[in-house]
Amino acid sequence: MEVAKVLIDGRWETAHSESTFHAENPATGETLAQAFPVSGWGDCNRALAAASEAASGMRTMAGEQLADFLETYAVNIESAAVAIVEAAHEETGLPASPRLKDVELPRTTNQLRQAAAAAREESWKRPTLDVERNIRSCFAPIGPVIVFGPNNFPFAFNGISGGDFAAAIAAGNPVIAKAHPLHPHTSQLLAEEARKAVVSTGLPSGSVQMLYAMSNEKGLRLVSDPRVGAVGFTGSRTGGMHLKRAAEDAGKPIYLEMSSINPVIFLPGALAENAGALSRELVDSCLAGAGQFCTSPNLILLWDGLETESFLESVSSAFQERPAQPLLSCAGRNQIEHGVKALIDATAHLVTGGKPMEGVGCRYANTLLRASGAQFLAHPHDLQREVFGNVTMAVTIANVEELKAILSLLEGNLTGTIYSAKSGADDAIYDQIEPLLRQKVGRLLNDKMPTGVAVSPAMNHGGPFPATSHPGFTSVGIPASLTRFAMLQCYDGVREDRLPAVLRDKIENASTWRLIGSDWVRG
Amino acid sequence: MEVAKVLIDGRWETAHSESTFHAENPATGETLAQAFPVSGWGDCNRALAAASEAASGMRTMAGEQLADFLETYAVNIESAAVAIVEAAHEETGLPASPRLKDVELPRTTNQLRQAAAAAREESWKRPTLDVERNIRSCFAPIGPVIVFGPNNFPFAFNGISGGDFAAAIAAGNPVIAKAHPLHPHTSQLLAEEARKAVVSTGLPSGSVQMLYAMSNEKGLRLVSDPRVGAVGFTGSRTGGMHLKRAAEDAGKPIYLEMSSINPVIFLPGALAENAGALSRELVDSCLAGAGQFCTSPNLILLWDGLETESFLESVSSAFQERPAQPLLSCAGRNQIEHGVKALIDATAHLVTGGKPMEGVGCRYANTLLRASGAQFLAHPHDLQREVFGNVTMAVTIANVEELKAILSLLEGNLTGTIYSAKSGADDAIYDQIEPLLRQKVGRLLNDKMPTGVAVSPAMNHGGPFPATSHPGFTSVGIPASLTRFAMLQCYDGVREDRLPAVLRDKIENASTWRLIGSDWVRG
Repeated sequence: MEVAKVLIDGRWETAHSESTFHAENPATGETLAQAFPVSGWGDCNRALAAASEAASGMRTMAGEQLADFLETYAVNIESAAVAIVEAAHEETGLPASPRLKDVELPRTTNQLRQAAAAAREESWKRPTLDVERNIRSCFAPIGPVIVFGPNNFPFAFNGISGGDFAAAIAAGNPVIAKAHPLHPHTSQLLAEEARKAVVSTGLPSGSVQMLYAMSNEKGLRLVSDPRVGAVGFTGSRTGGMHLKRAAEDAGKPIYLEMSSINPVIFLPGALAENAGALSRELVDSCLAGAGQFCTSPNLILLWDGLETESFLESVSSAFQERPAQPLLSCAGRNQIEHGVKALIDATAHLVTGGKPMEGVGCRYANTLLRASGAQFLAHPHDLQREVFGNVTMAVTIANVEELKAILSLLEGNLTGTIYSAKSGADDAIYDQIEPLLRQKVGRLLNDKMPTGVAVSPAMNHGGPFPATSHPGFTSVGIPASLTRFAMLQCYDGVREDRLPAVLRDKIENASTWRLIGSDWVRG
Repeated sequence: MEVAKVLIDGRWETAHSESTFHAENPATGETLAQAFPVSGWGDCNRALAAASEAASGMRTMAGEQLADFLETYAVNIESAAVAIVEAAHEETGLPASPRLKDVELPRTTNQLRQAAAAAREESWKRPTLDVERNIRSCFAPIGPVIVFGPNNFPFAFNGISGGDFAAAIAAGNPVIAKAHPLHPHTSQLLAEEARKAVVSTGLPSGSVQMLYAMSNEKGLRLVSDPRVGAVGFTGSRTGGMHLKRAAEDAGKPIYLEMSSINPVIFLPGALAENAGALSRELVDSCLAGAGQFCTSPNLILLWDGLETESFLESVSSAFQERPAQPLLSCAGRNQIEHGVKALIDATAHLVTGGKPMEGVGCRYANTLLRASGAQFLAHPHDLQREVFGNVTMAVTIANVEELKAILSLLEGNLTGTIYSAKSGADDAIYDQIEPLLRQKVGRLLNDKMPTGVAVSPAMNHGGPFPATSHPGFTSVGIPASLTRFAMLQCYDGVREDRLPAVLRDKIENASTWRLIGSDWVRG
């Protein structure tokens, strides 16, 4: 079988590859037949050249045309859904239904359509007019965007179809996607649908490109290339930090989502009111997708006491009863093994699980660990290590002061959750701990689990370092996510016929909100 | 005379200093009497601790109180204007009037008042409500902000009174200002007015603090401290890049304004129409403040030909006739000398100037260099070096293709300017070059010089690297500049009485614009 081709400048081309790799079926452990290329610099360079060219064409493209592309692509994905879901199921081990077919795929096409609507509306450009002084500014495309997708959402966060992709295109930028090597065939099928949409909607040939893999060194060179506008990355902290330094040293904005343990706090009154239902909610959330969600609750904080003991017992029982789901890769299983060992070395106590599963495929036993607040305070760094998978640690707290000390030592997280009594019994504690948790997380939840991430304009899928690299931006939530891939462009004293349409006195697009003086005005 | 004290936690305290320094009067070369401390880590650490404490208090402070502080401070500065202007004139050599007293000081208090209005209005928080799903988000304070001010605007960009200071405070953050060592007494007087305003408006004692200087190593440690929220820096590229890496490695957002040569293009028709007036405009802009403005035109691009020769002759004559203004420091003069030599080494030809001035104080002759487009293309890196001062280089272009090649090799700049014929004779060339220049600059000007930076909501004082570190942000222009010092905070499923006031269904502040669904709604 010949090596898969890369998508460069509108064509599937033979890669200038340094080596090849194969994906695996993590549910069976089987290596899949298709070979995919690890691109050398030649491929990166050709893609960058084509993206630069495309950027010139897209810079002044009407939002309407970008929207057409995004919507056509969404339709194309739906038409090819059977094959795409099958490929993703084979490469990720995630259930074809409901997860891939009924949840993630519709979410992905929904994101593309929301991005299309934002491109069409153009309010994301935040046109700001000082008519008196004839100074006007708006957001404009930043240039070619490199998107590194993660292993855990083969559609919704894929570099060629996910939230970063949709945001970058809607903002008028070409994308060079770096597919995740755990689902190259899925990415290939998606990229082909994107390519067809590029052709049918007349986008420049270099506006959507995809490489499967490259060496770390080539990756660093890619993100720091002068032709790059910005970079989006979702993945591990180690890989992310290397890319971050390379991009930032070259002055390139890079948006990384790297690491989050998503603390969930159960205040005493909440457990007293509703322990049974909360235990089921927690277990569902922890084990969803084998715990391989960015917002999976890895750290549970509860009060010392009998209620907590009984709650943890029921969580532990459920962890034992529920079948361990296949992990995304055997490498992931090895990382979990390594991470659990590190937590135990840092004095955490193993309640259940803590070992790989026998049999076919790559699975790890659903794992619950625990530690006391005092232990956490003695090893705050090692005990807040992210273990990406079906591993959760419960920390039992002696009193509110201890909890406050723990919260103040937490690194940044995507989410933080507080369950409190409906009766109001926990309100005094809530008021004491909320300010500390609030500053450490991008999204604060009450009485619900963090694993659902709605694609809402008000969503923040972001947070302080190391959850992301900048707490002012979100990767989910349109139109906010578009501004990551934009530069601010001011026009000072420029004649009206030379201004972009959104900055002229009279605007044709009746749907665009503009800030004129200090008022938001539409149309 | 005793060493000046540092402002920590609301009090003027004896510094734990590693050494001391003196400012100089650059107009006379005289060393000034007052000794100022170079702070050791102890001072930085105490300031960080007080700032952390203040951040807790300011996090939920009403915009009204922040506005009161900013406005009181503005009034205090006006009351103390005579002494402040005198100190700045002595330390910088800038004319007391009109520059310091009638231009920069009113601009500074105007900025503080605009920031106050933004804090009061609260629209900068961009409250976004998804009422149906009860997901809500807004910008909130990011935490203690370190501000490094530059040498060239002792009021308007001072770390203790300038745009970054005003934006950081208005967004609800404490500021630790690092005064510029060329105007420590000016900064001391400003800080005292700030301190009094902190007291009279009831801000936490650690909300406004100031150190005069610290070693480079301590500076790097300061910006990467876990207690820091973000950093603002205006200054040299070398210093900026060191701080950038330190802050970014620690996951801290840092906004730097570093380097810009502000290309000005005169298209042939513009010169034909109006050479005399344009020559005067250009000379005024180049020599304003001895060329020590961030937006000073350092690179002039013109067509080869007789019109250009005559234009450059008149510029050269004016450079010779106008007295060279004192520079901000003798070190600055040495840097100019070094920079001019580097440009000449890179084949630029000296037209006039090119040497330090004899006599008292630190001055350098108004300097015009020139090169051909071919020379520029042969040495694009060395010939776009920023020389901070009264030094301008003219590059004469053979044709539009050559100009396009030059523009495509430019680094990022704060501004880019095109002068074109009113008759429309230059329009075809304009259309060809605008797209290239547009992507390289934060602010594009037509037919006016870039040295004026209006404090308008539509202003962008920013631009692609290395002009700044992120092309999506501006340091001038309110409310946009506030968002640099903010984190995005989402509330998901949070009970209404626990939400910040701007996110509740009914908002008390009738002036706040909110994005509800996809509509901007006020009050």
